[in-house]
Amino acid sequence: MPYAVVLELVGEKPPPYLGKHAHGLFFALLSQMDSELATRLHVAPRKPFTITPLGEGQGTLLLRLTMLDDELLSPFLHTLLQIAPKGLPLGDTSYRLVRVLSTPEGHPLAGRVSWEALRDAPSVTEVALAFRTPTVFTTSKPGGRTRYTPLPEPRLIFRSLLEKWQAHSPYPYAPEEAAALLEVLELELELSSFRRLRFFRVQVARGFFPGFTGEVQVKLHGDCTEAQRTLGILQTYAFYAGVGAKTTYGLGLTVPLSTKSS
Amino acid sequence: MPYAVVLELVGEKPPPYLGKHAHGLFFALLSQMDSELATRLHVAPRKPFTITPLGEGQGTLLLRLTMLDDELLSPFLHTLLQIAPKGLPLGDTSYRLVRVLSTPEGHPLAGRVSWEALRDAPSVTEVALAFRTPTVFTTSKPGGRTRYTPLPEPRLIFRSLLEKWQAHSPYPYAPEEAAALLEVLELELELSSFRRLRFFRVQVARGFFPGFTGEVQVKLHGDCTEAQRTLGILQTYAFYAGVGAKTTYGLGLTVPLSTKSS
Repeated sequence: MPYAVVLELVGEKPPPYLGKHAHGLFFALLSQMDSELATRLHVAPRKPFTITPLGEGQGTLLLRLTMLDDELLSPFLHTLLQIAPKGLPLGDTSYRLVRVLSTPEGHPLAGRVSWEALRDAPSVTEVALAFRTPTVFTTSKPGGRTRYTPLPEPRLIFRSLLEKWQAHSPYPYAPEEAAALLEVLELELELSSFRRLRFFRVQVARGFFPGFTGEVQVKLHGDCTEAQRTLGILQTYAFYAGVGAKTTYGLGLTVPLSTKSS
Repeated sequence: MPYAVVLELVGEKPPPYLGKHAHGLFFALLSQMDSELATRLHVAPRKPFTITPLGEGQGTLLLRLTMLDDELLSPFLHTLLQIAPKGLPLGDTSYRLVRVLSTPEGHPLAGRVSWEALRDAPSVTEVALAFRTPTVFTTSKPGGRTRYTPLPEPRLIFRSLLEKWQAHSPYPYAPEEAAALLEVLELELELSSFRRLRFFRVQVARGFFPGFTGEVQVKLHGDCTEAQRTLGILQTYAFYAGVGAKTTYGLGLTVPLSTKSS
């Protein structure tokens, strides 16, 4: 069951490179919990979680974690609560855990959904998404070139989400079905509008990445009911999976804004 | 020789649908000058001119025209000056021509350049462009679908400019060379940043089109000197040719901001 929790931490001063240190803290906790799993996840090309510092104020730091692996959340929270009294290191600063917010009432970016509810999400023909932290797509090209695309192109948004769905969902599409869906989405999706689009250059681990934040509305043309169903799934899934690259370093935090059922 | 002139007009009140009426006025003048040419250009898929109302204030209206056809400008201006004393109709309003501004000193959006100077423009590896009026790309898809992309994707910007170069320049690339260049540009161009990106929905003739305005910086990777040369040409050409669709209705007015020679 995909989960999103928000950890409320207090400490003396927020360290620089918060995304990197949050990433480090998460893996340190994971190692305590299951060192073999931590090693495995560290090298996994697609990680079943996202980690996003939500900013801080007056010594309080909010850290959002989402988990796409059913097996991961409760042992992780167990380890977190065991370790927390000794202090949670983020860079040079030791933080105290104040609360774990796990419902939308506790924090609007927390929540959960079952894989079955996702799979059965209502079909939609229009999607509105807000990209709350810088979001970027890694576009590989022939000859080992890596290019970054910091623009909300509908085909890149939904290709990223479909790949994350295929990687983590217990109900993936058959490969040939996923390929056909991608083709339909590529042909039939259109950006109907955007708002507050801003460009950022952010440090992630050892590199700098371009990224955008803002809100987009995307329309699905045509009458492919399977594509409409997939769009409904993926827009809900985006809240847990994030969009694009480096979502374990705080990038790509995405919130669906509204839906229009077909 | 590509030319940009700005007409300063005065009239009682600016009509709605200025882009449409400016388009109509231009073709009316063209018909007076050479009705056969006007008919031919009206149906031409790629028109060797752009028409952009630059906004108005206190009864004054600025109308920018660019011409990519060497044969077009002087007979057109001749006709304009002949007709102008009788009044120039824009919608229901008759406008008077006050001045024709044809140099950058007269108006920063006026100027000219020879095809030879364009062809020999310095190579660049970085380009900064400002999209001053809503800009959109028409992306055709299989099955007769027409999609609009209101985002400054480097490959769409430079594909549009290269196609306009091929259509109007007396020094086009050989078709196979143009295809090879497009491929390199597609692989090696990357959006390095954007600023002030805004979304618009604008009425053009009978339809509404999405579009963006804003500033972008684009980087050319790799070391293909021919691509660097082409980029230098196209960024200068953008000032005269405009970018994307509906440039004869005021869309896609584009100004190069700076260059970095390679």
